[in-house]
Amino acid sequence: MSGYGSVHPALFCDLYELTMAAAYDACGLDGTASFELFVRSLPPERNFLVVAGMAEVVDALADWTFDDVALAFLRTVPGLTDEFLGRLHGLRFTGEVRAVPEGEVVFAEEPLLEVTAPLIEAQLLETLLLNLVGAATMQASKAARVALACGGRPFADFSARRDHGVAAAMSAARAAATAGAGSTSLVEAGRRYGLALSGTMAHAYVMAFDDERDAFRSFARTFPDTTVLLVDTWDTIEGARNAAEVANELAVEGIHVRGVRLDSGDLEVLSHKVRCILDDAGLGDVQILASGDLDEYRIAELVAVGAPIDAFGVGTRMGTSADAPSLGVVYKLVDDERGPKLKLAEGKATLPGRKQIFRSEEFDVLGLVDEDLEGRPLLAPLVAEPVDVIAARCRAAVAGLPERVRGLAPASPRYEVRVSPALAAMRDRLAAGHGR
Amino acid sequence: MSGYGSVHPALFCDLYELTMAAAYDACGLDGTASFELFVRSLPPERNFLVVAGMAEVVDALADWTFDDVALAFLRTVPGLTDEFLGRLHGLRFTGEVRAVPEGEVVFAEEPLLEVTAPLIEAQLLETLLLNLVGAATMQASKAARVALACGGRPFADFSARRDHGVAAAMSAARAAATAGAGSTSLVEAGRRYGLALSGTMAHAYVMAFDDERDAFRSFARTFPDTTVLLVDTWDTIEGARNAAEVANELAVEGIHVRGVRLDSGDLEVLSHKVRCILDDAGLGDVQILASGDLDEYRIAELVAVGAPIDAFGVGTRMGTSADAPSLGVVYKLVDDERGPKLKLAEGKATLPGRKQIFRSEEFDVLGLVDEDLEGRPLLAPLVAEPVDVIAARCRAAVAGLPERVRGLAPASPRYEVRVSPALAAMRDRLAAGHGR
Repeated sequence: MSGYGSVHPALFCDLYELTMAAAYDACGLDGTASFELFVRSLPPERNFLVVAGMAEVVDALADWTFDDVALAFLRTVPGLTDEFLGRLHGLRFTGEVRAVPEGEVVFAEEPLLEVTAPLIEAQLLETLLLNLVGAATMQASKAARVALACGGRPFADFSARRDHGVAAAMSAARAAATAGAGSTSLVEAGRRYGLALSGTMAHAYVMAFDDERDAFRSFARTFPDTTVLLVDTWDTIEGARNAAEVANELAVEGIHVRGVRLDSGDLEVLSHKVRCILDDAGLGDVQILASGDLDEYRIAELVAVGAPIDAFGVGTRMGTSADAPSLGVVYKLVDDERGPKLKLAEGKATLPGRKQIFRSEEFDVLGLVDEDLEGRPLLAPLVAEPVDVIAARCRAAVAGLPERVRGLAPASPRYEVRVSPALAAMRDRLAAGHGR
Repeated sequence: MSGYGSVHPALFCDLYELTMAAAYDACGLDGTASFELFVRSLPPERNFLVVAGMAEVVDALADWTFDDVALAFLRTVPGLTDEFLGRLHGLRFTGEVRAVPEGEVVFAEEPLLEVTAPLIEAQLLETLLLNLVGAATMQASKAARVALACGGRPFADFSARRDHGVAAAMSAARAAATAGAGSTSLVEAGRRYGLALSGTMAHAYVMAFDDERDAFRSFARTFPDTTVLLVDTWDTIEGARNAAEVANELAVEGIHVRGVRLDSGDLEVLSHKVRCILDDAGLGDVQILASGDLDEYRIAELVAVGAPIDAFGVGTRMGTSADAPSLGVVYKLVDDERGPKLKLAEGKATLPGRKQIFRSEEFDVLGLVDEDLEGRPLLAPLVAEPVDVIAARCRAAVAGLPERVRGLAPASPRYEVRVSPALAAMRDRLAAGHGR
């Protein structure tokens, strides 16, 4: 099979991971270490994060090895000795990964993922893990807000064309499904993840015909049950009238036009006008789908004013998380064979030690891994799960949030994450001793 | 070789491209058509775009085919007939692509790429081309601003960990190199594109030792010529003193510490203090590298106040184009066998016909493909070029811009793109005839 866009997973690292590994190796440091992947603080526009990307981590770890291709390149990198490269040759991941299951909700400072492995392996995975988990979690967190704004109306992921590269488009589709999207337009995501596909037609289709009605007729005859007609290529109102005419004309052939799509202009005003045109033509069952620069804010407005829109196609702003296009994910050493670790850099201090998250109804407690506190523990061994399982978890997790946290506006107060007394004591002890 | 993140290029399409193709096929529409990929308007934060992603287009087109894997999946998609799927089976791209060469500068409404091919092929490529060219161009355009802000100081791409997926990280590295980055931290980008690699060390490295100086010593001994010491794990000033102590101690062993890195805190204040510490220790040749949430705005401030920073590591905000995380790239039918085409949707009108861009010193003229106007024509047959060729082109193109357009603030007036009288006449004639 042809493939495009693949990367070598073991070389998908920053150079410093290799040079640090070489330096660890040179001084015999390779005991078991634990690293945590977390977000230091939430973007102001986010009240919670939806965990995603773990299935991609499972795949990437399975493929992660320093094979001949990797070694051939690494021999050209200055400073890496033959001895160290021999050590890397054939290396595979031998450690353990705990993670918050995909679809679950998390907050700042809570570990989404923990790697416990020989120091060198754990260090070499830094960039790969940050990239996969960070991007997908950012996308799922945005999509969860879109789902909340839709208030039960279906929405589809239409983001592929403007996501940042092919991998981002794939994870955007999966993240949207996690958050409740009913379908994606991206065919490869349908194949890879078993997602439902949807789509309408482009302006180019309409423009390829001399008469808009001929475009509508030909498409509906080819897809007699699923056609959604795009009505704004030249003039939305005329387009809606043409759609109604064609829908009624084709009904006698047993063809059922399913809907029309509005993709420009004032969607509130136009949806009312188009609804009238359709209803006046006896087409009360023909739905209105809206698209075009939509996000949770715009959708919430349209829903609030009662725009007669049955479903939304959401693209760029969802897939790129336009109002918060990155998460400050970090990957920090929290424990090694000499004990728990802490970093103190200005504004970037970390919590030491391996942890567990305990979730109660109104707050979380961040405790040490061996504590047995009240609440539901979230971190568990990493697994790849099907999207429907993850989507069900996400639905429940979001529904379980306090109402202020489920809102689109910044929650005040923020969801509370407490630090257990034992973890706080460890942090204070290490900080007093300068982190060491 | 192991690979991760690959997609099937022919299935990297939106469903509607397949359904439109099926409908075109059903009514025998497959004459030669031309589509243009362009940006309707620049983000307010961008005065110009730097074209990128064309090498990826060349690769993707070479891999683009409906093979058995694609067909096996498409047979499960409702509504696609066996006859149509038989037509797709084995299909490869037979058309022609003209593009603005990578590294060149373009503006709103100017075609970055034009596909002329049988209608069905051209339509099926829509999402793939938009994704590849849009994302890379967005990244190169942002990186070009970073290069302008650096004012000749070297900068490195450190964005891989927070780019949107693995493909975005690869194109970010290449886009940064296009715009003038001296190196990237991403090892796989070094392998794939022949880019110079750079990197320092992580806080985890320092934390893996009991004494910061031991961490510095061990790293410098492993990399005696290239070590850059990260000094802010616990306290930047103490870290800088430790770095100076170790640098002088190791100098007698013939080891030359190349620099220190500041990654947190007030970079202006700290860079002055650290420069003093290094200079007082006789280490005037040890450089200061700064990183941490940098972008062109922050770098310009640091440069303007004379912060003694020798080089910048630029990550998240550059790779995600944080202040403008998408471009409104579109792919529009402009011509088919029945003549030039135009779309009129509210606020989304297009210019009809196949075009050429003619660049003069102070403005561009957008003309018809067969016009011979003054200025340098930009659209040429698509080719893949090495990054150094592209970077040289970018340097010249940016240097050739009017000063107001090269600035970080919005240019007023914007760079002028004129429409040739012949193109304007064609547009007016078609608009009067309702786009058809």
